[in-house]
Amino acid sequence: MKTLWSDRYAQRTRYMQSSVVRELLKLTEKGDIISFAGGMPAPELFPVDEFKEATARVLAENGPQALQYGPTEGCRRLRELIARHTARYGIVVAPDNILVTSASQQALDLLGKIFINPGDRIVVEKPTYLGALQAWNMYQAQYVGVPMDDEGMKTDELESAMRCGPKFLYVLPNFQNPTGVTLSLRRRRRIIELADHYGVPIVEDDPYGQLRFEGNHIPPLFVLDSRNRRGENNGSNVIYLSTFSKTLAPGIRLGWIVAPAEVIQRLVQAKQGTDLHTSSLVQLVACEIASGGFLDGHVRRIRAVYKERRDTILAALRKHMPRGVRWTRPQGGLFIWATLPEAVDAAELLVEAAREGVAFVPGAAFYHDGSVRNAMRLNFSYAPPERIEEGIRRLAGVLKRRLAGAARGRAAAPQPAGS
Amino acid sequence: MKTLWSDRYAQRTRYMQSSVVRELLKLTEKGDIISFAGGMPAPELFPVDEFKEATARVLAENGPQALQYGPTEGCRRLRELIARHTARYGIVVAPDNILVTSASQQALDLLGKIFINPGDRIVVEKPTYLGALQAWNMYQAQYVGVPMDDEGMKTDELESAMRCGPKFLYVLPNFQNPTGVTLSLRRRRRIIELADHYGVPIVEDDPYGQLRFEGNHIPPLFVLDSRNRRGENNGSNVIYLSTFSKTLAPGIRLGWIVAPAEVIQRLVQAKQGTDLHTSSLVQLVACEIASGGFLDGHVRRIRAVYKERRDTILAALRKHMPRGVRWTRPQGGLFIWATLPEAVDAAELLVEAAREGVAFVPGAAFYHDGSVRNAMRLNFSYAPPERIEEGIRRLAGVLKRRLAGAARGRAAAPQPAGS
Repeated sequence: MKTLWSDRYAQRTRYMQSSVVRELLKLTEKGDIISFAGGMPAPELFPVDEFKEATARVLAENGPQALQYGPTEGCRRLRELIARHTARYGIVVAPDNILVTSASQQALDLLGKIFINPGDRIVVEKPTYLGALQAWNMYQAQYVGVPMDDEGMKTDELESAMRCGPKFLYVLPNFQNPTGVTLSLRRRRRIIELADHYGVPIVEDDPYGQLRFEGNHIPPLFVLDSRNRRGENNGSNVIYLSTFSKTLAPGIRLGWIVAPAEVIQRLVQAKQGTDLHTSSLVQLVACEIASGGFLDGHVRRIRAVYKERRDTILAALRKHMPRGVRWTRPQGGLFIWATLPEAVDAAELLVEAAREGVAFVPGAAFYHDGSVRNAMRLNFSYAPPERIEEGIRRLAGVLKRRLAGAARGRAAAPQPAGS
Repeated sequence: MKTLWSDRYAQRTRYMQSSVVRELLKLTEKGDIISFAGGMPAPELFPVDEFKEATARVLAENGPQALQYGPTEGCRRLRELIARHTARYGIVVAPDNILVTSASQQALDLLGKIFINPGDRIVVEKPTYLGALQAWNMYQAQYVGVPMDDEGMKTDELESAMRCGPKFLYVLPNFQNPTGVTLSLRRRRRIIELADHYGVPIVEDDPYGQLRFEGNHIPPLFVLDSRNRRGENNGSNVIYLSTFSKTLAPGIRLGWIVAPAEVIQRLVQAKQGTDLHTSSLVQLVACEIASGGFLDGHVRRIRAVYKERRDTILAALRKHMPRGVRWTRPQGGLFIWATLPEAVDAAELLVEAAREGVAFVPGAAFYHDGSVRNAMRLNFSYAPPERIEEGIRRLAGVLKRRLAGAARGRAAAPQPAGS
């Protein structure tokens, strides 16, 4: 039906696209589908009882505060708790360097809002987190993609990207979404050097850093930045993002930004106009759960379960996948990245896979230019091991049939005249 | 400290300004101040026990759903509940016409995001809700202000505003923030006529509609729009906003938008990039509380308490305020608007008032052009009656001293030569 609104959309909406992942979430709500699609934590690990008890305590002790308007920057107690938490990873900052956000997606939106003019270039990994592309497309960002290998962003190809005057560089250093790859210490140091040399600041997005199953912790870029090493956080070249989504629960929508105080003040102004503040109830409940020391043990449990699932999916891939399929071997996080034979379009494969009751995200969604068609992101945190094994078996079956069909097609195709 | 970020802010941040109200909220956190400043509900009325019980039930019955990612448009059950709720006010729509938002501030931001190009004109009441100005300043909106009287926006002055090609008209029909004035039925009909005639759509913001103490309910503009009367909601000229902030609690950050399905789909795409979705936990808990029929009685209690406070503040104003001060007499909501003698700058008065332990919001904040200095918004929902009486006594004292000082200043001032 025609409405007066229809021809009134702002120009920026042309750059808007629905997230494939969100649309897939709807698909996975239906019936008995084995989903490797969303980035969903294992729901059976959610600390439901702790939420129940913490909410009861918060409402009994601070009911009016939990239900009233609160400060835009976030509850003081929660910002202090976050400061203590990040200090364990070497990120030693004051509460004034922290803004509480409605999870990382809002952090990305607010950064776009205060920094990105139409046409501004952002350096991103190729592939990169599609939520960042979605947030920044609305501010009409342009992207300069830097390819990755199993050490992360290829720094020998970064220099030319840094020369084109980007607004900032965006990097997910740990168990990257979508590839699961971790940026090596050597590369982190090199990125910091190049950023200093070219005067390009860095947005470091670290939702999965705590979920390391094996190997050694690598210092965040924030910690490697010389200004932060000297304690000059208010001159930091690095803005650091993290979240409670993967350690506590994503459904509460709670994350944070660490930045120079001056930037935090601008972000606060932007957030005032965006949603006033993040739910007071949610902030106090998360604070209550996290301040009791419960989180450490809980994160250890999550790591153990996800490690088992990663081992299961790796074993299933080895067992079932046909030749010509390659995949990453993440040391933590939630995702594996699989590269298919070049002729296979993962989006087409998904249609057949969904019919067989299995879902994933086609890799093109994570490329700002959609340039790679033969890859997929596989989440291993959501489904239990036996479902993972069965899902990969089904997925490999669909792929094998497709490859066999393509081979028959090639054999049956008319040969060019004269050959 | 100098940071690389400092000279990288986007152009739109020049249009950003910190909310006077939010800054005042911080002021009122300190010491024994009587605040007429924020738009805060009475905290002693918050249904703390209902929240406690509802949260326990939701977590017991739907723990994983409450803590997991959810659909961007909002939980189906909550959207159905909102549809049943709005139907009682004649707004008969399908769940597909509803988007759940992180309260009304996010609704305003998302509307700005999908509709406002830099330089677009928005018709607003003069004065209008400052949160809307804050949200839309970031999209570099221009404003065309239409003066108000005690029937609301003066429709005889609206026609010239409609001729300048505005993107939409923004109106708060019930107990407007900041004036407390209600738009009369006659004026509502005339606005609908003019909007039809000039092809200008309407954003109707109705956070306070349920809080009517006296007088008769007036149909929303949404209901008066002929397309909606014919049941053609997907062609509606009116987008309707409301919230649980004033009936349940503002600290949970929960509101909604009613719009044509096509607009909702665009808003969903914008919200995906903005915060993915509103807290699942908060949505399910609000649904649990509201679906049990508790809200009707609760809203009646709120109305009775606020009516008493309105009566108290009106009586205190009559008793204490010096001559030359005028104020509105709202039939509902949370606010009264007081106009001071022309020579008094309310922002200057606030500095003195804060020293005497009383706060309000200077009226200029609600004018897109800051053009009126001698007015103030007085909230009467937050402080209990005895504090309201005492606060108005103090405020009147400060004002009387200022007026007396000004009179002495005039008497003592050197007269211009030759006079």
